[in-house]
Amino acid sequence: MPAVWYGAGGTEADRERREVMITSTSNPRMKEIVQLRKKSRLRSKTGTFLVEGLRMLREVPQNRLLQLYVTDEFYKKHRAEPIFASEKVLVSPEVFACISDTKTPQGILAVVRQSDYTENELLEKCRNKNAADKSRAAHFLVMDTIQDPGNLGTIFRTAEAAGVTGIFLSRECADIYNPKTIRSTMGAIFRVPFVYVNDLEETVKKLKEQKIHVCAAHLEGKRDYDEEDYCRGTAFLIGNEGSGLRPEVAACADTWIRIPMEGQTESLNAAVAASVLMFEVSRQRRKCNHSLAGQ
Amino acid sequence: MPAVWYGAGGTEADRERREVMITSTSNPRMKEIVQLRKKSRLRSKTGTFLVEGLRMLREVPQNRLLQLYVTDEFYKKHRAEPIFASEKVLVSPEVFACISDTKTPQGILAVVRQSDYTENELLEKCRNKNAADKSRAAHFLVMDTIQDPGNLGTIFRTAEAAGVTGIFLSRECADIYNPKTIRSTMGAIFRVPFVYVNDLEETVKKLKEQKIHVCAAHLEGKRDYDEEDYCRGTAFLIGNEGSGLRPEVAACADTWIRIPMEGQTESLNAAVAASVLMFEVSRQRRKCNHSLAGQ
Repeated sequence: MPAVWYGAGGTEADRERREVMITSTSNPRMKEIVQLRKKSRLRSKTGTFLVEGLRMLREVPQNRLLQLYVTDEFYKKHRAEPIFASEKVLVSPEVFACISDTKTPQGILAVVRQSDYTENELLEKCRNKNAADKSRAAHFLVMDTIQDPGNLGTIFRTAEAAGVTGIFLSRECADIYNPKTIRSTMGAIFRVPFVYVNDLEETVKKLKEQKIHVCAAHLEGKRDYDEEDYCRGTAFLIGNEGSGLRPEVAACADTWIRIPMEGQTESLNAAVAASVLMFEVSRQRRKCNHSLAGQ
Repeated sequence: MPAVWYGAGGTEADRERREVMITSTSNPRMKEIVQLRKKSRLRSKTGTFLVEGLRMLREVPQNRLLQLYVTDEFYKKHRAEPIFASEKVLVSPEVFACISDTKTPQGILAVVRQSDYTENELLEKCRNKNAADKSRAAHFLVMDTIQDPGNLGTIFRTAEAAGVTGIFLSRECADIYNPKTIRSTMGAIFRVPFVYVNDLEETVKKLKEQKIHVCAAHLEGKRDYDEEDYCRGTAFLIGNEGSGLRPEVAACADTWIRIPMEGQTESLNAAVAASVLMFEVSRQRRKCNHSLAGQ
């Protein structure tokens, strides 16, 4: 039986009234959604994830929207939203409470296809960059075993704002498709190209072949981060919150940089460290551009 | 009945065996600790808070340690720790699980006196700064209604690393003494001077009287943040995660600055924005110092 069923004839309003509403949490599709919310492995296997709330759903590219679930109340309030050009399935408030990741759900949730950038597509972006416009040189993040979902989301959000070209993540990083992480990206997950890679060392080598200057953020870095020239193509290696970069990954970098710290602080939060570095790139590139414009 | 009771005579080991151990969660002191963990108001009323785990407890100034609770197992493993120069109370593992804020408690927890800096003491630090050494000019954060405990903790941690002189918080900010926030400060809560103030506008006026340049981080700022001179005494106003600075607070600033953003990002995470600003101060001051040294 289809989850959405239209009776024959009548007005649009009649048809809507006759739409079948999912009212049971044992409905197989509802069961799968709960599993998609909980299990990173199932998200990975199906190549899908959940997006909840109108604000985030407005960011989803239409061709990646697979299934749309909504409560009757939400639909009636927001029927003019462009998202309802896509087919929707009505769900009772009780069932929605069960599939939702939030305590006070809005009443709209979708199954969305994961991003499908390949490593090569991201690397291509090095070549596509116009070397004459310094502010547009490639700017990558390479993340090794970032485990905190909140940090990962914040890094995506900041990366978009700092004009990052793309993000490479080791398989050991947290799952960006975790519902909480998606929220903390504030939509950047749909706009910043990224890819999980199996072999981070191999990725770093490929970046270097593309003349990208690879800087490892490292507590034992000898140079202050602001002494490097970031007007050229740049990638930052960012390591795990507790243990930093794996030595074999750090060893692949062109240079190790550090953020000078005062007090007794042993390290910075990984998202903070990445943010300071990314915005130093932006800052320098605004200056490069000014001096190029003045020539 | 005293919670710790020493029998007469015998060896130290004998005395320890005779120490009374708290084994009931209905013990009034245990009940109060649970309340201290949960209730910001009680922490404020008693001027105390809880610190858990050996790493954090090592940071507590000795004169602020009021009561120390420990499981027998933890004590036996760590009896050489300097903290056990203070009087301790033994607690059964079951009771400890109940007073602890973590799922897998280490077995050590203390009631600690809150910081008692006054607004004037923090303002004094403007005057104490040696104007000849630019890198040591005052550097303040003024936080308006920061509500996310994680952000607040991260800001403290970053502030210490960026050499911040002190932090003023509006009463509407989250409680820094929340157990989760304390952990995320990584000990900076014991090292960065801070004070909650009733009237943030009044504080800003006092900072300006001390010739501190007050910059409001504002999405409508007209100047890029890196165009300001931070070698002089500087304070940043940082606003709420969702709604930014209250207009009446922003209006008190000398200037509004913005962090230029690309993409469709509407704003940065509050801790990220504060971090970018604080480390721009450090960066500029390293340069000021270099040029002063070269004179």
